[in-house]
Amino acid sequence: MAVYTEVSDDALTAFLSEYDIGGLVAFRGIAEGVENSNYSLRTTQGDFILTLYEKRVDPAELPWFLGLMEHLAQRGISCPLPVKARDGDALRQLCGRHAAITTFLPGIWPRRVRPEHCGPLGIALASLHAAGAGYAPRRPNALGPAGWAPLLAACLPDADAIAPGLAAELNAAHDSILAAWPVHLPRGHIHADLFPDNVFFLDGRLSGLIDFYFAATDLLAYDIAICINAWCFEPDISLNVTRARTFLAAYAATRPLDAAERAALPVLCQGAALRFALTRLFDWINTPKGALVTRKDPMEYVRRLRFHMAAPDEHAYGL
Amino acid sequence: MAVYTEVSDDALTAFLSEYDIGGLVAFRGIAEGVENSNYSLRTTQGDFILTLYEKRVDPAELPWFLGLMEHLAQRGISCPLPVKARDGDALRQLCGRHAAITTFLPGIWPRRVRPEHCGPLGIALASLHAAGAGYAPRRPNALGPAGWAPLLAACLPDADAIAPGLAAELNAAHDSILAAWPVHLPRGHIHADLFPDNVFFLDGRLSGLIDFYFAATDLLAYDIAICINAWCFEPDISLNVTRARTFLAAYAATRPLDAAERAALPVLCQGAALRFALTRLFDWINTPKGALVTRKDPMEYVRRLRFHMAAPDEHAYGL
Repeated sequence: MAVYTEVSDDALTAFLSEYDIGGLVAFRGIAEGVENSNYSLRTTQGDFILTLYEKRVDPAELPWFLGLMEHLAQRGISCPLPVKARDGDALRQLCGRHAAITTFLPGIWPRRVRPEHCGPLGIALASLHAAGAGYAPRRPNALGPAGWAPLLAACLPDADAIAPGLAAELNAAHDSILAAWPVHLPRGHIHADLFPDNVFFLDGRLSGLIDFYFAATDLLAYDIAICINAWCFEPDISLNVTRARTFLAAYAATRPLDAAERAALPVLCQGAALRFALTRLFDWINTPKGALVTRKDPMEYVRRLRFHMAAPDEHAYGL
Repeated sequence: MAVYTEVSDDALTAFLSEYDIGGLVAFRGIAEGVENSNYSLRTTQGDFILTLYEKRVDPAELPWFLGLMEHLAQRGISCPLPVKARDGDALRQLCGRHAAITTFLPGIWPRRVRPEHCGPLGIALASLHAAGAGYAPRRPNALGPAGWAPLLAACLPDADAIAPGLAAELNAAHDSILAAWPVHLPRGHIHADLFPDNVFFLDGRLSGLIDFYFAATDLLAYDIAICINAWCFEPDISLNVTRARTFLAAYAATRPLDAAERAALPVLCQGAALRFALTRLFDWINTPKGALVTRKDPMEYVRRLRFHMAAPDEHAYGL
């Protein structure tokens, strides 16, 4: 839940006067998302989301994210479309923050994932990868393999206090994953954070993908591995292979996976689990007591990592 | 900001099937309010608010609150109207909580109060008091004078750690206020928490009053005193007498204040300041570190209390 910046009604009215989207009708903070402040905004012309970008997002990268969303939305991906003000700019300033208005997407994210969600998810992810192909600017993935070593170094001194032996385990996994990391797989723009709370469904159909602020240019199949981690495990961290198979089959029917991508699936899943274990561990160690965010348990991803380290090959995922 | 209970999409769909308000379109947690979990709910028939009642609200009192809102809404007060399911009941169960759907009110609450807000506020409060007259059930005010002594006793041991001398100051104020408390003023149903974040404005007009879960049966003029505390002070805790005068004049033009009510204004304001100082102090002392709520500074109301203790008579408020 997140509203870090309080927007005054005066400031909001002045901000909206720069747009041609009608007059203010309602404005409420949204209790979702942890990186930015999000508001539900209704005007006389419809519904929108107002996002104020907080400190974790590099302002220099905002044009890339907004450009990607516009590119994808124009190619039929159900994602937020940045709304431009009268001067043609979507990226603006409000209350000392960078800010943007995007279109509102209907739907509700699945609190309990079922196999029926995983087919539409696979199609949507493959479609996103295909639609992104024509977006020329690139953004290196700060949370790809090159980003893990500094995170790991920052976490190691405190890791054993969270679970005995965790430092050595993460070190060994990191070395093993980097050594096996594939480099010649198909690349493109990936969402990189497509967890269930970023995917809306309505009447059983996928109605929208949101939160592109971790998107980057990386191995397309790494995005698949992130989704397997995020969507296909039971609460006890056993793999639900029905969900994984459904997701992978739907993805591959839309964008065929080559043999190298299939074979790399275990190490990609290991890397994805390590990435979320490390960022959660970092936040766990560095979130001040009393902060207005719920810390997420890093061990949920350490346990996924263990599963993937033990996976003999891609058939473990139902491929 | 508050969403304490996570509602699954399955549970929500089942819940909505008991109503005749259309199918689910969107559902987002609202980052406002601190007592209950609130969600913005859109169906094919319109917009609603779904509230899950959390532990601070006594379930036995919920019918009183919902009944009052229905009574007021039917008499032209712009407040949330509880929506009944097909069986005629508005108060239901969801995810192990009592829950209710109410209508959605447009508008935005004023982050920066101006005198122009205070006239409509006065009219709305007086209208609420008048409209409440026909609602027969009564609810004693747990946070009226009888409720202060136990709160004070709970806070005293820690008060001096927050500000030296605070325990003695609050004790003396409490004795003085109770000794002077008026008992024969007009009584009725009061909102009792009509802070700016519970009052919506749209295009310069007051568009709605929300959050009736502190409402009670008490001195009507005590509600006026609460609003003076909540709306009429500058950030440096000086009284903005223009706002107070505007508010009081608008109120009195709608429901005339008798001489005893006017004369009691200083002590009523003292009591209201003490009430919010004590509840904030209690929360300050008892909110666990790491809790997902922002603690509010009790000293803001101690300083208002000092202002009111020094007020010679009602003319201090522009009457």
